[in-house]
Amino acid sequence: MSKSFKIDHDRERRIGFPEIIFGASKTVEALKQIISDYQQKQKSVLITKIQVDKAAELAKIFTPNFYDKISGVLLVGQFPKDEKKGNVAILSGGTSDQYLVNEIYYTLRFLGHKAERFQDVGVAGLHRVVGNLDKLRRYKVLIVVAGFEGALPTVVGGLLPQPIIAVPSAVGYGVSEGGHVALNAMLSSCANGITVVNIDNGYGAAMGAFRIIQMMKENRSGEN
Amino acid sequence: MSKSFKIDHDRERRIGFPEIIFGASKTVEALKQIISDYQQKQKSVLITKIQVDKAAELAKIFTPNFYDKISGVLLVGQFPKDEKKGNVAILSGGTSDQYLVNEIYYTLRFLGHKAERFQDVGVAGLHRVVGNLDKLRRYKVLIVVAGFEGALPTVVGGLLPQPIIAVPSAVGYGVSEGGHVALNAMLSSCANGITVVNIDNGYGAAMGAFRIIQMMKENRSGEN
Amino acid sequence: MSKSFKIDHDRERRIGFPEIIFGASKTVEALKQIISDYQQKQKSVLITKIQVDKAAELAKIFTPNFYDKISGVLLVGQFPKDEKKGNVAILSGGTSDQYLVNEIYYTLRFLGHKAERFQDVGVAGLHRVVGNLDKLRRYKVLIVVAGFEGALPTVVGGLLPQPIIAVPSAVGYGVSEGGHVALNAMLSSCANGITVVNIDNGYGAAMGAFRIIQMMKENRSGEN
Amino acid sequence: MSKSFKIDHDRERRIGFPEIIFGASKTVEALKQIISDYQQKQKSVLITKIQVDKAAELAKIFTPNFYDKISGVLLVGQFPKDEKKGNVAILSGGTSDQYLVNEIYYTLRFLGHKAERFQDVGVAGLHRVVGNLDKLRRYKVLIVVAGFEGALPTVVGGLLPQPIIAVPSAVGYGVSEGGHVALNAMLSSCANGITVVNIDNGYGAAMGAFRIIQMMKENRSGEN
Amino acid sequence: MSKSFKIDHDRERRIGFPEIIFGASKTVEALKQIISDYQQKQKSVLITKIQVDKAAELAKIFTPNFYDKISGVLLVGQFPKDEKKGNVAILSGGTSDQYLVNEIYYTLRFLGHKAERFQDVGVAGLHRVVGNLDKLRRYKVLIVVAGFEGALPTVVGGLLPQPIIAVPSAVGYGVSEGGHVALNAMLSSCANGITVVNIDNGYGAAMGAFRIIQMMKENRSGEN
Amino acid sequence: MSKSFKIDHDRERRIGFPEIIFGASKTVEALKQIISDYQQKQKSVLITKIQVDKAAELAKIFTPNFYDKISGVLLVGQFPKDEKKGNVAILSGGTSDQYLVNEIYYTLRFLGHKAERFQDVGVAGLHRVVGNLDKLRRYKVLIVVAGFEGALPTVVGGLLPQPIIAVPSAVGYGVSEGGHVALNAMLSSCANGITVVNIDNGYGAAMGAFRIIQMMKENRSGEN
Amino acid sequence: MSKSFKIDHDRERRIGFPEIIFGASKTVEALKQIISDYQQKQKSVLITKIQVDKAAELAKIFTPNFYDKISGVLLVGQFPKDEKKGNVAILSGGTSDQYLVNEIYYTLRFLGHKAERFQDVGVAGLHRVVGNLDKLRRYKVLIVVAGFEGALPTVVGGLLPQPIIAVPSAVGYGVSEGGHVALNAMLSSCANGITVVNIDNGYGAAMGAFRIIQMMKENRSGEN
Amino acid sequence: MSKSFKIDHDRERRIGFPEIIFGASKTVEALKQIISDYQQKQKSVLITKIQVDKAAELAKIFTPNFYDKISGVLLVGQFPKDEKKGNVAILSGGTSDQYLVNEIYYTLRFLGHKAERFQDVGVAGLHRVVGNLDKLRRYKVLIVVAGFEGALPTVVGGLLPQPIIAVPSAVGYGVSEGGHVALNAMLSSCANGITVVNIDNGYGAAMGAFRIIQMMKENRSGEN
Repeated sequence: MSKSFKIDHDRERRIGFPEIIFGASKTVEALKQIISDYQQKQKSVLITKIQVDKAAELAKIFTPNFYDKISGVLLVGQFPKDEKKGNVAILSGGTSDQYLVNEIYYTLRFLGHKAERFQDVGVAGLHRVVGNLDKLRRYKVLIVVAGFEGALPTVVGGLLPQPIIAVPSAVGYGVSEGGHVALNAMLSSCANGITVVNIDNGYGAAMGAFRIIQMMKENRSGEN
Repeated sequence: MSKSFKIDHDRERRIGFPEIIFGASKTVEALKQIISDYQQKQKSVLITKIQVDKAAELAKIFTPNFYDKISGVLLVGQFPKDEKKGNVAILSGGTSDQYLVNEIYYTLRFLGHKAERFQDVGVAGLHRVVGNLDKLRRYKVLIVVAGFEGALPTVVGGLLPQPIIAVPSAVGYGVSEGGHVALNAMLSSCANGITVVNIDNGYGAAMGAFRIIQMMKENRSGEN
Repeated sequence: MSKSFKIDHDRERRIGFPEIIFGASKTVEALKQIISDYQQKQKSVLITKIQVDKAAELAKIFTPNFYDKISGVLLVGQFPKDEKKGNVAILSGGTSDQYLVNEIYYTLRFLGHKAERFQDVGVAGLHRVVGNLDKLRRYKVLIVVAGFEGALPTVVGGLLPQPIIAVPSAVGYGVSEGGHVALNAMLSSCANGITVVNIDNGYGAAMGAFRIIQMMKENRSGEN
Repeated sequence: MSKSFKIDHDRERRIGFPEIIFGASKTVEALKQIISDYQQKQKSVLITKIQVDKAAELAKIFTPNFYDKISGVLLVGQFPKDEKKGNVAILSGGTSDQYLVNEIYYTLRFLGHKAERFQDVGVAGLHRVVGNLDKLRRYKVLIVVAGFEGALPTVVGGLLPQPIIAVPSAVGYGVSEGGHVALNAMLSSCANGITVVNIDNGYGAAMGAFRIIQMMKENRSGEN
Repeated sequence: MSKSFKIDHDRERRIGFPEIIFGASKTVEALKQIISDYQQKQKSVLITKIQVDKAAELAKIFTPNFYDKISGVLLVGQFPKDEKKGNVAILSGGTSDQYLVNEIYYTLRFLGHKAERFQDVGVAGLHRVVGNLDKLRRYKVLIVVAGFEGALPTVVGGLLPQPIIAVPSAVGYGVSEGGHVALNAMLSSCANGITVVNIDNGYGAAMGAFRIIQMMKENRSGEN
Repeated sequence: MSKSFKIDHDRERRIGFPEIIFGASKTVEALKQIISDYQQKQKSVLITKIQVDKAAELAKIFTPNFYDKISGVLLVGQFPKDEKKGNVAILSGGTSDQYLVNEIYYTLRFLGHKAERFQDVGVAGLHRVVGNLDKLRRYKVLIVVAGFEGALPTVVGGLLPQPIIAVPSAVGYGVSEGGHVALNAMLSSCANGITVVNIDNGYGAAMGAFRIIQMMKENRSGEN
Repeated sequence: MSKSFKIDHDRERRIGFPEIIFGASKTVEALKQIISDYQQKQKSVLITKIQVDKAAELAKIFTPNFYDKISGVLLVGQFPKDEKKGNVAILSGGTSDQYLVNEIYYTLRFLGHKAERFQDVGVAGLHRVVGNLDKLRRYKVLIVVAGFEGALPTVVGGLLPQPIIAVPSAVGYGVSEGGHVALNAMLSSCANGITVVNIDNGYGAAMGAFRIIQMMKENRSGEN
Repeated sequence: MSKSFKIDHDRERRIGFPEIIFGASKTVEALKQIISDYQQKQKSVLITKIQVDKAAELAKIFTPNFYDKISGVLLVGQFPKDEKKGNVAILSGGTSDQYLVNEIYYTLRFLGHKAERFQDVGVAGLHRVVGNLDKLRRYKVLIVVAGFEGALPTVVGGLLPQPIIAVPSAVGYGVSEGGHVALNAMLSSCANGITVVNIDNGYGAAMGAFRIIQMMKENRSGEN
């Protein structure tokens, strides 16, 4: 059988950012082939949601590499050196969502942006959100992660004017098992103009923030 | 065919409150028979969620009566005179939930309690909740109504210590159509000890509050 | 009963845009009161998803007004005069989604932005999307509306680099009745960085785009 | 990375009870940090739904501790000594729900209340419920646990006047797998005034009962 | 187009009972053709769930006929004269389910059996079930109708030994709207050996009872 | 903690058959206590859906015992000796459903009835059903098991007049994973008078058949 | 606003068949514009699922036209004259599905094929299917329509070798309301190689059959 | 117990292709018996979706055999020698769907057809689809596999005229976990005439393609 993976070389020119590989459903064999292709082009490659055992096997072969066990993010190659600080803040309510916060954080770093993490601003203790308002006002994009009832983006959206990308996490049990309640609560939010990504899609949230920040640097307008 | 409805005369003795009639799914004929039975026993009867046209037909026949068009509550007979004020506060985020707020309010009034309504304390404007905290702290039970993403009980539950009965309203569209998102968000709330009733079950919330208040008047304990 | 609606006067200062009223679930009486409050403050007010008969009743009383029958958008007062053109493009696949395209269009206009509509770029005729690429590349934000299988944002997202807000419409039948398939397909999109709003939430999409454009005018950064 | 957990010291003053930790989704590392924080403040801490292996690892490090294998409740520190007996009765239909009965029991004990367990009062043998009515009438709050078709709270609610908190358990198979049928049956109950918590949320039920009992000790009223 | 309906003349010989027509989804034209076919064969025909206006139109043309407005059962022809009494009891909790009780009752009558209706034996008042136990013990088959939480068959199944056919009604709101909660609760019942039919399938329940009663008259056994 | 299980001694008198224990969700400790209680009363006890390892542990302690690995049925004690043959036929489409066929078979045997198994009569090969019609006509009750699209009961119900209990199995994948499609297809069957039990509820189907056969031996009638 | 509809002139060359218009969700104004465009090009246009009142309004303006009230198919222009007979058979179980049978029939006729309808071959009377086997064997494609439990395609697929397109209809109630059970049963069918279209998608089934028949006329092969 | 499996010898004559065995839910014992039966008739047998360990156990006993680990296809016996090339193209978007591509490929090979695989034509890189159009136009049937948002069949269907069988894969997470979004998007496709099989039903897609190709070789027509 012929090779089933081809790097989309044109993508970076076309939409301004590199392909990132979804690791969870690929075999080690498939991932090896993909990484080799990138290495031949002398490019770094980021793989998300990769299981510990598969990551370990790949780390033996390919260097240099970085692996974050909590989020399952594997980088073969290196993060870019000229990181831009401070454009994105990532908010979450506690340690249960850290796997997702880290996926967002490392994806943004791979794309050249060092985000800031605010990890204990849950809705059950509103004073923590309110106490951070002045700090949060300085960022260009807010990414807000929440599981269970997913109320945090609603509270943040009522207090701050920036673009908000809400990320439902799969953390919960009973009716909220799997993150569907958090997702639907975010989609139904009465705080205006919040946009949402798939459950556990930290990578997509980072990409969405990247699209916004890139656009801010340019000067486009339709008909003028 | 023989009569298909019998008043549960024993209920008041058994569980301390009268039967209330669910009007939405009953025919006018069935409701007439039920009301007549109550009138023969010289008792008032409260009917909930009754449609405007059915209520109008009944109001022609039975007096005295009270009908609240917004909630569909119909009383044939009279509210009790010795209302106890101030035990229950009903919170909601806006005019869309008024049908439910009123169902709770009139059910409690039928049971002898005059509740207080706080109808513009939604999560998108937190200052309104916070601004009412001192007032709200005075009530024994808080009933919190919300549609859409249903975040209000979570916010209230993180700020106040009383028993909280959360009532999801069917107000919403898209994923929150029918109230299921509000219900599930309330059940998943990270604010501790909130209890929940069925979507649009204002009557049940009032009954739940009534059970709590009645118990406060007594002095029970298991093994002592 | 006391007044159940209060304008959130502080909101515009806090998050930079005015409250917009969800008309579908409110009674004519409640809407009258809301509009009167705005008129007393000499402010225009936009109401979305309002039914034809309710709009007609209000239009008799309040002037000047504008009503778009297709989307159910009612403006009491006037659109701002200094419209900024060309920042936002609204894409859709056909006439069935026009109700949503218009809700987005008029909400943005109320917020001071004149968007451009591209209404026949469906996935079943890819040449139409491809033929418009150069034009589309000029906008700062793309809002992409689709019903049925909701594939349009995926196709657009693979070809263009801007922030994309995907809006599922409720148009469909069988499994796609109500817009849930379009919503879920958008959330699952393999085109990176697309963000999504609730089914039929044209208003929210407009607000999301507004948040992005506002931020582009400012110069924020966290830690620098 | 900076510390991602902070104890909410203010909570006890604000809402009258301490934070309890949801253990299922946290890593051992995160839990270690949390427990250390509590120990530095010389406070006991209760962790719920913690897996056997994680509990074992923590028990090696922190003393004194108590672990209930059936419910997954871990206490680091000590239960309060002055337990108040007899305010709460916990009812269930059999040994399958014991994991939930125990979560409720130990949470209440941590909050200073010794509850009573009635563990074989299922609906398939009504004589057992009826035979316990006099005993049950003595408690201030009834917590009723059921899986499968969840009918027990309905039967109890028709016979007894106290506040009833219904807790659906995840025990069941086929359509009732995961506890959704029990949950929905409880929400739909025709026995009035029953309130419900999330599936398997024993902790929330205990907190709900605690809120009620605390309120009974105080003397609040709104407007008087 | 050729005729699209043919009577299954062989069915009565094959499975022992006549075809009954589902009226809700058929046009008046289709129903006219069906009834004419039956009349030509000099057979009576029973039509279920037929809307009032369609029934009125047919009643003008075909005689003799019987129409029950509550259930939507239309008989063109006559009920059999030699009714067998007392084999089947139909239990329900109140007037809301009467439409279904009547569909069962008239279907059985069309099949030659006069059933008995017990229409106020709901679970919220257990004494009514218990008070009828001796009477109920005399029937060969029990058909138990319930909406909302659907607990009645469970309670009856724990007290009586006969074959029980549980029929969920579509009566309910919120989570129990449409009868799915009642259906699932009946399927999950911990009372053994209850069998269930589709929501609102009164006709199917009658047929199921008929199959049992017919078999009782015969003397079959497999291998002996 | 006091003993949480009590045998329902009265049940056999009340509803004519012994309690059977659902093994899947009970701990080995709980099962040991239950079996001991039965042994003290010198009664046999049947446990269903018990996992292999738990069964092995119990089999070491209690004798005599019988364990069927395919269905997970464990009998501690003995099957009754005077088996009645030939009243019940169990039909299924292939080897995938054997676990359920056996659960039905051994439950009936415990209740004193030896059923007959027809295990290759699937709908994809109709000639097999048709070829067995004469044999099948001899049984008093037909229990029909099917997974995937669940069409077998419909086909059988159109050809044979006996009481039919349809049992959906959890065998399937994609949309039919978990047995919900089979269940719903059976509930929707256009073959009249089929009744249904929960997914994988072989035990319930056996009990339902038992209720019918017992009734055939008696001579009850309501009003006569 | 500029014109929002453009005919896809290139489609017929590209994929071999003309665009057909989905009428249900379009306004009369939009449909008028579409039909005018087709008439200017001197092309006939077929509109599906159009409501009676909208069709009547259009029929007043545009001639010649054909409208089938049962299916809601409206043709402005003429059916092609050179119909090819006998390639496609449409099977269904009764008059309830006629709306869908007709949508398929008239769509195929518009595409130049006269199909044959077999409208009383339901699964509850297998002899009707079996009695038509020889006739059915002559067609190149079988389209099989069914509502409720959707078993007909499974039975047909086990008996005949042709390509089978299964079409679930929305006819049903209770669990089968809206056609989801029929759809899922068809997707799960144990009869091999059946393919399925959306609920009520008669038009899609006709198009699928058309794709097959067109391909039969050509002589394609990949690598040879 | 008697043998529970019988080969359907007549099937090949009746519908033109052999039975294929679904391996996932059968025990090794059951599979051994089935394979032995085939070997006695000197026939090859194909088993799909069989787990690695079960396949290994069978491969020890039966030769010759072929096992594809990625798809879980096991052949005991031999593929036919006279393969027909080039009738079917299998399209997919990446390595994650390879398990399904291979199931289709080997099933077709077992049926005598060598398909061609196009495994990197995802929607996020449209140029890959467009670049292969001329090649793809040569095949008689297109089988299109996709997970996540399932948009590939829609894009292909708008560009090519052949019969298209869409196969949703279970690859995805969050809302698209298990393949339901891909399935529903395919069913809702606005590209006309696409037909669909169950999630992960590669075998069914191969069979559907086989039915079409077989029919092309014959010359059937209904009434002519």
